[in-house]
Amino acid sequence: MKQVKVFLDESEIPRQWYNILADMPTPMSPPLHPGTGQPVGPDDLAPVFPMNLIEQEVSTERWIDIPEEVMEKYLLWRPTPLCRARNFEKLLNAPVKIYYKNEGVSPPGSHKPNTAIAQAYYNKAFGVKRLSTETGAGQWGSALSMACQMFGLECRVFMVKVSYQQKPFRGMMMQVWGANCFPSPSDKTEAGRKILAEHPDSPGSLGIAISEAIEDSVMDPDARYSLGSVLNHVLLHQTINGLEAQKLLEKVGVYPDVVIGCTGGGSNFGGLCLPFVQDKINGKEVSIVAAEPTSCPTMTRGPFAYDFGDTAQTTPLLAMHTLGHDFVPAPIHAGGLRYHGMAPIISHLVKEDIIEARAYDQVQTFEAGVNWARSEGFISAPETNHAIAAVVQEAERAKEEGKEKVILFNWSGHGLVDLAAYDAYLSGKLQKYEMPDEEIARALKAIEGLPKP
Amino acid sequence: MKQVKVFLDESEIPRQWYNILADMPTPMSPPLHPGTGQPVGPDDLAPVFPMNLIEQEVSTERWIDIPEEVMEKYLLWRPTPLCRARNFEKLLNAPVKIYYKNEGVSPPGSHKPNTAIAQAYYNKAFGVKRLSTETGAGQWGSALSMACQMFGLECRVFMVKVSYQQKPFRGMMMQVWGANCFPSPSDKTEAGRKILAEHPDSPGSLGIAISEAIEDSVMDPDARYSLGSVLNHVLLHQTINGLEAQKLLEKVGVYPDVVIGCTGGGSNFGGLCLPFVQDKINGKEVSIVAAEPTSCPTMTRGPFAYDFGDTAQTTPLLAMHTLGHDFVPAPIHAGGLRYHGMAPIISHLVKEDIIEARAYDQVQTFEAGVNWARSEGFISAPETNHAIAAVVQEAERAKEEGKEKVILFNWSGHGLVDLAAYDAYLSGKLQKYEMPDEEIARALKAIEGLPKP
Repeated sequence: MKQVKVFLDESEIPRQWYNILADMPTPMSPPLHPGTGQPVGPDDLAPVFPMNLIEQEVSTERWIDIPEEVMEKYLLWRPTPLCRARNFEKLLNAPVKIYYKNEGVSPPGSHKPNTAIAQAYYNKAFGVKRLSTETGAGQWGSALSMACQMFGLECRVFMVKVSYQQKPFRGMMMQVWGANCFPSPSDKTEAGRKILAEHPDSPGSLGIAISEAIEDSVMDPDARYSLGSVLNHVLLHQTINGLEAQKLLEKVGVYPDVVIGCTGGGSNFGGLCLPFVQDKINGKEVSIVAAEPTSCPTMTRGPFAYDFGDTAQTTPLLAMHTLGHDFVPAPIHAGGLRYHGMAPIISHLVKEDIIEARAYDQVQTFEAGVNWARSEGFISAPETNHAIAAVVQEAERAKEEGKEKVILFNWSGHGLVDLAAYDAYLSGKLQKYEMPDEEIARALKAIEGLPKP
Repeated sequence: MKQVKVFLDESEIPRQWYNILADMPTPMSPPLHPGTGQPVGPDDLAPVFPMNLIEQEVSTERWIDIPEEVMEKYLLWRPTPLCRARNFEKLLNAPVKIYYKNEGVSPPGSHKPNTAIAQAYYNKAFGVKRLSTETGAGQWGSALSMACQMFGLECRVFMVKVSYQQKPFRGMMMQVWGANCFPSPSDKTEAGRKILAEHPDSPGSLGIAISEAIEDSVMDPDARYSLGSVLNHVLLHQTINGLEAQKLLEKVGVYPDVVIGCTGGGSNFGGLCLPFVQDKINGKEVSIVAAEPTSCPTMTRGPFAYDFGDTAQTTPLLAMHTLGHDFVPAPIHAGGLRYHGMAPIISHLVKEDIIEARAYDQVQTFEAGVNWARSEGFISAPETNHAIAAVVQEAERAKEEGKEKVILFNWSGHGLVDLAAYDAYLSGKLQKYEMPDEEIARALKAIEGLPKP
């Protein structure tokens, strides 16, 4: 009987997060205050985030202890297994060994609670009573709802209205966990009311939802804002996954030639890959591949530039790969990958040629995802299918080159509440989509005049 | 850091199923041919099931080897973890230790593939090319779809039309796994066409769907019918779960005072409990509790009698607790528990006072389920919430008695595609429901005149 899965014993779970900022080979460009053009300091962020998380955001300590209270909640589903995709390997018929880390076993079904639990804990410890956030597809909103419930925090989620209507299950999930989920634009904020007055039928956007969540939190001294990706401390919390993967691979006795993750804001990718980036910086030979959608090709076609994190221009300027803060991606089904920017850490590593970005079309990703489900059983999130498409590509290359290869990827979440997307694919309703050059050029006008990194 | 989960290494997974028929303290009443009133022989069942499964159905061997090919597919998600519900314990504030076996980690999200994989394998080995089945809520239909895909069998699922429309995600899941799912009544069978001609708007029923699936399979010599619960061989395949649980509890160093499962046809309950029933028969002190809905109180209010397994009276007569074969349960959300009968094995054990049946109202079960989700994170299937309600009751009794107790229950599946039911509960739309005596008396008229066990 051939081995398929390896588990860590709970006693073997990593007790510290890994902070890549300690090992960056070149300095990162700091976030800038949009008014002054000067680097933002901790005090600038204090109305938005609690100081303990701001300290983590700027820390250069290599290892940061995971608090006991966070660990206790992680153990509800962590450590997650490392699995060998033997049936998918057979299907691809290439000289590859494919391993995947299964982050879909968490209660909301993805990697998102790794940081949601930590953020809820730190906010609670700082005396915060309520968190506000936005969500697109709903993975993040549901993870934060659960985390807030567990630490006794109130939680408000502004969910892009069109998603709220198309994916009612995510909103219901948040309610089961005791959160209030509002379709955005809502009448709860000035920003929302303004949009509703002008466009009563507005389908909403992530940009609007972010504006609502920030406004909703900064108006209340007991509340703070929470973000599910992009920022340094978010990627930090996710590294527990890559650290587990390293221990598990050691048990199996292999080291990957290629490590793959899909990228929207960068958090699931960073979580798995950053510990391997550390190895690479220390001389190990390993390819690290970020898989993004061709409909939102932030790293493959967007420049490395200073830009706002949100459409309403309320955040500091971040040095990152971006398509421009008012870029509106095509309505593909991988809602978690439809973000105009990319985590500054990931962007910096792409710029430094330490990791490689590739773009995949949604039709290609669903083809990979259906083949996966039919051989391995599990139905992947549409986001995760981008990583699987990259795995297929790597396997094909290995076959052409006649070279054996060990591939590791992050199975970032299941697609059980995204089945309408599979239905669209199977009934031939999904279109290939490549962004026209003119559209990118037009979107990038938004960053003209901003400082350059 | 207190232990929460225990895993078996794949090398420790049980390699045999446990057959309770070897240890029954009193003989079970055999299934009868409805025409002759005589016990049915293997040949009577041959048009419906392959002979290798018929042999398992009547076997009295205590241990039956799990084929390598089945084991290989089990390893995609098995062995499943044993978890201690420390957060739920804290909430209940009673002197209990609560352990649960997490069967929700399988690709379709429940225990159902334990037998789906085995049935697909044995049918394939027998030369069958296609399986037909029915499904109510869709858990079984999706599990068999996946299993058929993995063994290269065609699969047709007749899904009760009202469920097909209310739960489109289950149908989509079946399509992802390559099955054909038809709303029943359909125009694919004589039975379906007859109903449609008389009642074009019929919402369908499990009884009609079973008739369609049996007809669809017996008309084609290359096809067979497949059932997801009730029968001996189905419960046999499920015992891998209870056997894993016993090994895991041994690792933890505890033995349960109470073992609990919810019961619709009896398969998830039997899977966890039958190995503990063996212990009990051999002298061990342990309570074994079957939790059923008050809206379909098969064991708590139905007699032990001979009855048909389906509404259309096409099956042999089974000796079981039953509410009568044309009983139509109230439309509660736990679709998997809405069956008029109960597995003959489970019914016999209730009759012999080896296991105890209790009924829970759906409002009470959702209250338990929401408290579970808010403390343990995971959102349970509505069926599973019946088991959690029984856990709560056991904890309350322990508190009253001031007695420490170890409770084990089967977390048979997650509720991520059943969130509309939670929404109904949270918005106050669910009603308490107790079946009136007259209604039971009326339903039981259907078994008047049938042989008695």
